[in-house]
Amino acid sequence: MTASETPAEALPDPAAGPEAPQPTGPVNRRLLLAERPVGKPGLQHFRIERLPIPEPGPGQLLLKTEYLSLDPYMRGRMNANAGYTEPVAIGGLMVGQTISKVTVSQHPDFAVGDRVVADAGWQDWLLSDGRGLRKLDPAMPQPTLALSALGMPGLTAYVGLLDIGQPKPGDTVVVAAATGPVGSAVGQIARLKGCRVVGIAGGEDKCRMAVEQFGFDACVSHHDDELPRLLAEACPDGIDIYFENTGGAAFEAALPLFNDFARMPLCGQVAWANATSLPAGYDLTPRVMRVFLHRRVHLQGFIVTDHLDSRFDAFLADMSAWVAEGRVKVVEDIIDGLEHAPGALSGLLSGYNLGKLLVRVEDTPPDAPLPPD
Amino acid sequence: MTASETPAEALPDPAAGPEAPQPTGPVNRRLLLAERPVGKPGLQHFRIERLPIPEPGPGQLLLKTEYLSLDPYMRGRMNANAGYTEPVAIGGLMVGQTISKVTVSQHPDFAVGDRVVADAGWQDWLLSDGRGLRKLDPAMPQPTLALSALGMPGLTAYVGLLDIGQPKPGDTVVVAAATGPVGSAVGQIARLKGCRVVGIAGGEDKCRMAVEQFGFDACVSHHDDELPRLLAEACPDGIDIYFENTGGAAFEAALPLFNDFARMPLCGQVAWANATSLPAGYDLTPRVMRVFLHRRVHLQGFIVTDHLDSRFDAFLADMSAWVAEGRVKVVEDIIDGLEHAPGALSGLLSGYNLGKLLVRVEDTPPDAPLPPD
Repeated sequence: MTASETPAEALPDPAAGPEAPQPTGPVNRRLLLAERPVGKPGLQHFRIERLPIPEPGPGQLLLKTEYLSLDPYMRGRMNANAGYTEPVAIGGLMVGQTISKVTVSQHPDFAVGDRVVADAGWQDWLLSDGRGLRKLDPAMPQPTLALSALGMPGLTAYVGLLDIGQPKPGDTVVVAAATGPVGSAVGQIARLKGCRVVGIAGGEDKCRMAVEQFGFDACVSHHDDELPRLLAEACPDGIDIYFENTGGAAFEAALPLFNDFARMPLCGQVAWANATSLPAGYDLTPRVMRVFLHRRVHLQGFIVTDHLDSRFDAFLADMSAWVAEGRVKVVEDIIDGLEHAPGALSGLLSGYNLGKLLVRVEDTPPDAPLPPD
Repeated sequence: MTASETPAEALPDPAAGPEAPQPTGPVNRRLLLAERPVGKPGLQHFRIERLPIPEPGPGQLLLKTEYLSLDPYMRGRMNANAGYTEPVAIGGLMVGQTISKVTVSQHPDFAVGDRVVADAGWQDWLLSDGRGLRKLDPAMPQPTLALSALGMPGLTAYVGLLDIGQPKPGDTVVVAAATGPVGSAVGQIARLKGCRVVGIAGGEDKCRMAVEQFGFDACVSHHDDELPRLLAEACPDGIDIYFENTGGAAFEAALPLFNDFARMPLCGQVAWANATSLPAGYDLTPRVMRVFLHRRVHLQGFIVTDHLDSRFDAFLADMSAWVAEGRVKVVEDIIDGLEHAPGALSGLLSGYNLGKLLVRVEDTPPDAPLPPD
């Protein structure tokens, strides 16, 4: 694990000010979307709401959030046009996947102390009827892995690289955001399959991590103006699989290196997540399509949730073994305190995190004094 | 068949001028690439060469060109960087597929009078050792079909639509250059498979042809500034397959209409063929990739020659039956005279042809007087 260097400012809590009364009993803090950001999201786009902790009735259970996953897709959900799914409503709870613990249960399938993966969103507590929960093996040494290598990011890497990318030994695989939970899994699985793996990441520290901790053959920084030349030098045999999770400079540097019959699984474009307009200058579309045509590129856009039913079991079996054997490593970047989630998300979109970004919520119980501003 | 309205200027023939001697015996006229065009190709980029007709030795045969196929890919081959294959050399013979007739044979597999599909290029005669020739059935009523529906354009449509597009009954299929040999085949095969077919073509005449002769459900003109709105109205259920052979305005109009899991076989981008620079303004790439991601688009670039070995036999069996049954129709636009090929290619790239563009070479025997300038 790596200590976070994310400059995550805390969301001001109206109840925590010197004039406001301290809460006297347990409450459920909920982080709501206050307004839709234009460009980068900041604290001003969120607000905090404090509600009583709900009480489970028959067939229900109460979940305490332990860890909240922060992921690039969240930025898209803050827009009015979220794309492939519904946006978060103004005044609505921010969405997010969590590791949660059952604290009260009137549900036959769940016992107090069970840990689950839930879509609890950005809040301390969730009242659930059990639907959509996935129980974790109590023997699991590091439950947070269910939000990274053994969860959605890992499945994204697995489906995109293996099902779409169809790697063959000796292929060159390029992936950006190389130290993130998706990119690092892509690179490590590709190495297991006998590929040469080249990462693109933001800065020297991340590049070093990609090579030294995740075993990439090489990694180049997208902060370097010479990225196209550096990437070409790192890929002397061209690129067979370009795993696209960022767009932007990484894509533009990779495109001219595509080999015949290259594959391009496409799961994200975080480089453009905060863009408020299309890049000015020239339309690169004709050049992009020319490469796709001449190199007979296979591009497949995909969203991980489409593949849960068909691939999760196989993925979990393979990936659990690889993690247990130490062949797939995970680096986590953990922020303490739900109130820091907005700042941490903003930092994630700027690439400040180093590894899988999580918010630890369990250490801020609702009846503890809230932190000062 | 449709009389051409292509304004195909003839290439001046130095030997045909008032000062130059008329040829006294048979010659082989060869149209060579004189210089690489920047932007639109014109007569100045070609020159004519007159060589003696070659004489076949043992194992060889002499082919007389009857029809030369003109196709958009030829523009790319005139560039120094042709992309997926070698460019035509400066001073080299322009490439092209032909219907040719065996006039002399010292080859055991070919007899005088046999018709073949050959890659003879832009010339009257070809000396061949038999390799790469495909003999046509002498019973074939219209041998030129081997250059359109029963040849490369038909195979392009077949592979792109069926293998990549995977059409299902009720799907909406959109194809541009709808009256061209690829587009018209795509539309007609898609109709056979139970799809709703919407064409995009240049102008009202072509749109009428797409609907009335090729049976498209609708066709809209890319000359109309309202193309995006018109296409949206013609596709009330969105687009499941966008068969990409043009790029440009057609692509930009189709993109916002893509349904989830849309397929985009990509075989050409003739709209950008003559471009000398990328379009100024904004880079649409982030928007394109956003649609590809959110709609989980499957894009596959392909080049028809990759699929000859694996798919030609199945294609020819299916397509011959459909043509014989009148379920796939062909419209040909025939230009007379090899010397008109450069102007006709230029016209093709501007969309002046109406149907499959061919040059009839057989009516200009080498020992006839050449046409005046």
